[in-house]
Amino acid sequence: MIRFHEELTSLQNPKVKQVARWRDRPDRDDSQVVLAEGYRALVRALAGGYKIREVFVCPEYFPAEKHHEDELLEQLAAQGARLIRVAPAAFEKMCYRDRPEGLLGVGPQLHRGLKDLKIPANPFFLVAEQIEKPGNLGTMMRSSDAVKVDGLILCDSKTDIYNPNVVRASTGNLFTLPIAEATTAETIPWLKAHGVKILSTSPHVDTLYTQVDLTGPVAVVVGAEQYGLTKPWLEQADIKVRLPMLGEADSLNVATATAIMLYEVVRQRLNAGIIKDPGRVPDSADC
Amino acid sequence: MIRFHEELTSLQNPKVKQVARWRDRPDRDDSQVVLAEGYRALVRALAGGYKIREVFVCPEYFPAEKHHEDELLEQLAAQGARLIRVAPAAFEKMCYRDRPEGLLGVGPQLHRGLKDLKIPANPFFLVAEQIEKPGNLGTMMRSSDAVKVDGLILCDSKTDIYNPNVVRASTGNLFTLPIAEATTAETIPWLKAHGVKILSTSPHVDTLYTQVDLTGPVAVVVGAEQYGLTKPWLEQADIKVRLPMLGEADSLNVATATAIMLYEVVRQRLNAGIIKDPGRVPDSADC
Repeated sequence: MIRFHEELTSLQNPKVKQVARWRDRPDRDDSQVVLAEGYRALVRALAGGYKIREVFVCPEYFPAEKHHEDELLEQLAAQGARLIRVAPAAFEKMCYRDRPEGLLGVGPQLHRGLKDLKIPANPFFLVAEQIEKPGNLGTMMRSSDAVKVDGLILCDSKTDIYNPNVVRASTGNLFTLPIAEATTAETIPWLKAHGVKILSTSPHVDTLYTQVDLTGPVAVVVGAEQYGLTKPWLEQADIKVRLPMLGEADSLNVATATAIMLYEVVRQRLNAGIIKDPGRVPDSADC
Repeated sequence: MIRFHEELTSLQNPKVKQVARWRDRPDRDDSQVVLAEGYRALVRALAGGYKIREVFVCPEYFPAEKHHEDELLEQLAAQGARLIRVAPAAFEKMCYRDRPEGLLGVGPQLHRGLKDLKIPANPFFLVAEQIEKPGNLGTMMRSSDAVKVDGLILCDSKTDIYNPNVVRASTGNLFTLPIAEATTAETIPWLKAHGVKILSTSPHVDTLYTQVDLTGPVAVVVGAEQYGLTKPWLEQADIKVRLPMLGEADSLNVATATAIMLYEVVRQRLNAGIIKDPGRVPDSADC
């Protein structure tokens, strides 16, 4: 049984209204909060060291095939979160997902810079410059987790990383990924100082992405949806590569192109025995 | 100078209201129409043999860096389209994109089956089963064009392929791709009869996608966002493969995973000299 600290039923309750307002950036930024909605997002927020302060819970919305909601809420309470029982109508007003799962957490935003990234022996970074669409940014976070980058560096970001659509598309990986926000002007010298090769992507260059050695220290660098990378990234790249475009179109979706690049790094590193494949995903996995 | 057949200024004009209603599926299906919004979508609709009947034009919205709007409209008129000049306020009501480009075409929906697909010597298909999100489906179309599949087969589709968000995410490639709508029950025997290997994807199998030969006749098969492939595709697969998952998450976005698979086919076929890389994209490309 979950022990709640508080119960909310009214749609007019100021907390209900406040959470609904946090979907919009100005309110969210003023309060410096992030909303973690759903079981998976909360598991990852907990794992990523986000100190979730409040969790709004509506068991009526728990999925038919339950996760381990009770255990998760116990863990969240143990690290200081208030658990607040919310009536379905009020919960609907607060949540933003199409398929609510009855859990919505509120935690503090974290803003980290280059100095917060750990640099292992053979680093693998993703640099994303001026990405505009939250769905793309979130999907790139999900892929970055899948290939286990040592850091996702967001340069001159055009998107609030705590936009609910980023959180959703990242499937909560926003919370566990090492993410740094930085400018292009500080990132290029930082990468060079650490001996990391800058691999810039552009459709307008000759070398294919499969023709270069990606087993050493590398930062895959991708640019904005509409215009691609800015000049500094193209001029100061160690290597410039493109994906083959065999059809009518001259480009891929940026999150798609990024994932293809990231998986080429993984393919080469697996082949070279530098990293290890963890094997199949168990059937029972629910994260 | 564009010669218009008609001019619309009133927001109350029945045509303006009709086009706005076509954003919703029941109305769109009743009329069996598709909306092609923007320069690129119209270029591709024309190339793909869609007989665009009407084009609503609002030059006030043409982008600052113009495409070749006048030539395109001439071509569309030559193949029978009526060109209708629309005042900005009315155009805003009709269009659905965030950044309107002043062009909105209406054409007939095409519904094609397996028998409409051409089967070359060494076919390469993508089969997508029960995809739910329009953005994912459209992105998969864009990637399918980029690798030049011989057919995109949509099995037991959960999404209307003419949903405006599909058209948009496909960047118009919906119109030029060979797309077939079919059931799983008809597609599996059809692939087997044509000697096409069924390559089903699942996180719960042992073989990595890079460990199999993808240079022969192949259909990459991907399943729905939440539950993956249905049993028939897993049971009757010739090969089952997974992508390595090195982080916390156990899956990628379906459009992302699909593109990684498709590009592995391309990588192997380029390496084997079966296909040819067309080279870099010219700087001036605007499609």
